[in-house]
Amino acid sequence: MSDEDFSKGTAYVRGAFVPVDKASISPLDWAFTRSDVVYDVVHVSNGAFFRLVDHLDRFERSMRARRMKPAESREQIEQILHRCVAMSHLKDAYVAMVTLRGRPRIAGSRRPSDCENHFLAYAIAWVDIVPKEVKERGVRLWIASVPRVSDRAVDPTVKNYQWNDLTSGLMEAHDREFDTAVLCDEDGFVTEGPGFNVFIVKEGKVSTPDRGSLQGITRRSVLEFCKELGYEASIAPILRGAIEAADEIFLTSTAGGIVPVVRVNQTILGNDRPGMVFEKISELYWRNHRESAYRTDVNYAT
Amino acid sequence: MSDEDFSKGTAYVRGAFVPVDKASISPLDWAFTRSDVVYDVVHVSNGAFFRLVDHLDRFERSMRARRMKPAESREQIEQILHRCVAMSHLKDAYVAMVTLRGRPRIAGSRRPSDCENHFLAYAIAWVDIVPKEVKERGVRLWIASVPRVSDRAVDPTVKNYQWNDLTSGLMEAHDREFDTAVLCDEDGFVTEGPGFNVFIVKEGKVSTPDRGSLQGITRRSVLEFCKELGYEASIAPILRGAIEAADEIFLTSTAGGIVPVVRVNQTILGNDRPGMVFEKISELYWRNHRESAYRTDVNYAT
Repeated sequence: MSDEDFSKGTAYVRGAFVPVDKASISPLDWAFTRSDVVYDVVHVSNGAFFRLVDHLDRFERSMRARRMKPAESREQIEQILHRCVAMSHLKDAYVAMVTLRGRPRIAGSRRPSDCENHFLAYAIAWVDIVPKEVKERGVRLWIASVPRVSDRAVDPTVKNYQWNDLTSGLMEAHDREFDTAVLCDEDGFVTEGPGFNVFIVKEGKVSTPDRGSLQGITRRSVLEFCKELGYEASIAPILRGAIEAADEIFLTSTAGGIVPVVRVNQTILGNDRPGMVFEKISELYWRNHRESAYRTDVNYAT
Repeated sequence: MSDEDFSKGTAYVRGAFVPVDKASISPLDWAFTRSDVVYDVVHVSNGAFFRLVDHLDRFERSMRARRMKPAESREQIEQILHRCVAMSHLKDAYVAMVTLRGRPRIAGSRRPSDCENHFLAYAIAWVDIVPKEVKERGVRLWIASVPRVSDRAVDPTVKNYQWNDLTSGLMEAHDREFDTAVLCDEDGFVTEGPGFNVFIVKEGKVSTPDRGSLQGITRRSVLEFCKELGYEASIAPILRGAIEAADEIFLTSTAGGIVPVVRVNQTILGNDRPGMVFEKISELYWRNHRESAYRTDVNYAT
């Protein structure tokens, strides 16, 4: 063992494990200069990955969609993720896997296919999409005026770092003392927010947008739990008006789990308190972390 | 002087000058994980920056639009650019200035306003948007099927690294043995390509798109030269059909200057040879590099 300090997290980059604060990439990598990069995030809860297989599947799909192939195999990537968590002795962690386009092997080439793709990963202590106290009192959600980038221009199901529109929405929200924002597309349909999917509940029926959104793994869990709990749930077009008229709203994210919304713009939902459907689904979500087949125990001996 | 090798280029990062291959950023910087970053590129030709003031002006506008402010003043940034070029003894260079969002000062914050913005710059040998031999024979341009991200979602006049749609267009072009691509917006209007503005000439009249595009400095130069040469020139909506029916097409970019197009999809322009308007404007462009008030001599003594 080296005498380096891995307590803040561990990264794997260019084939080596380093303390996360020492991880670096080149500012000339196309992953930076063209945001030509795909990633995924899985979380570790109480010593186990949650739905690791699903995250690896999605990560592979994202790489294929952008024609990227790093040197590491899926099995190696899985081992690397375990080791990043293990080296930092994290029991609850945010674990990122990232494939970067790299730089061209041929000087002066402008062709993505000439680039040497490479893989990086890191595990850090669990991070939430909103601070803990906001999660407890419930999120105040702003419906941004900036539209979400269209699905035809950038496929939102391929997890990417192109957050410019989401960041603009977030700045709008913060300017107005809201916690975060949800974006609509140019046709007025609700999409997603910075790092999360959105769900609405109306007269006991649960729905989540069919467009402009990542196919979140937590979103998928919620859809499954709805079935288990007997709620009718659907992936459907949701107009801006429907979110303003919802009985309940909640957000889903790997980083943060399920987060209740108590206000949307000037509307106060359910007496400014998290709703009942949220409570039931959230309870089931965390119960699944303890019991279910979705757990992959971290190999701390690695 | 250190004994490090600056011959491949020099970068300024975290307050220090380093060989460009040693420059690094954190993969946890929001400039990477949210592509929350603005940049500009100026070129050095024969020992002088070209239109440096205009590039610095635009860079400042981009930073303001994204509410970023690094520690370095405009004057310091200018000195840093000189020094990056001087340390590598470059006479013809591609010089990038980049402001990164950074990471939040407060652990766990998701607010852009909590981040410590920082500045980086680098000078490397001149790079072209297309290889030299392609520039000489003329570009074969593909009109991509993927649409450009809308101006309302992401302001294209704020120079950014979010190239996903442009990269998709580039891959389409390469699959079909074209050199590069131009994208149309979802309404069918021509916008720009990966790293360049586009101009068309029809019956002696020159025009360039009014939307979906960076307000390029080379584009501005060309508009000025058109006036000087007596061509009617305009910034106007250009439908896809108009580019296919053009007499001449050329591309403009800081990295590459003015580049002629000889084919667009299956259409061959002007006998597969660069056109006359291109030749005249290009000649004037390079003449200006030698003579004009646009030159800022690099301070190699710095």
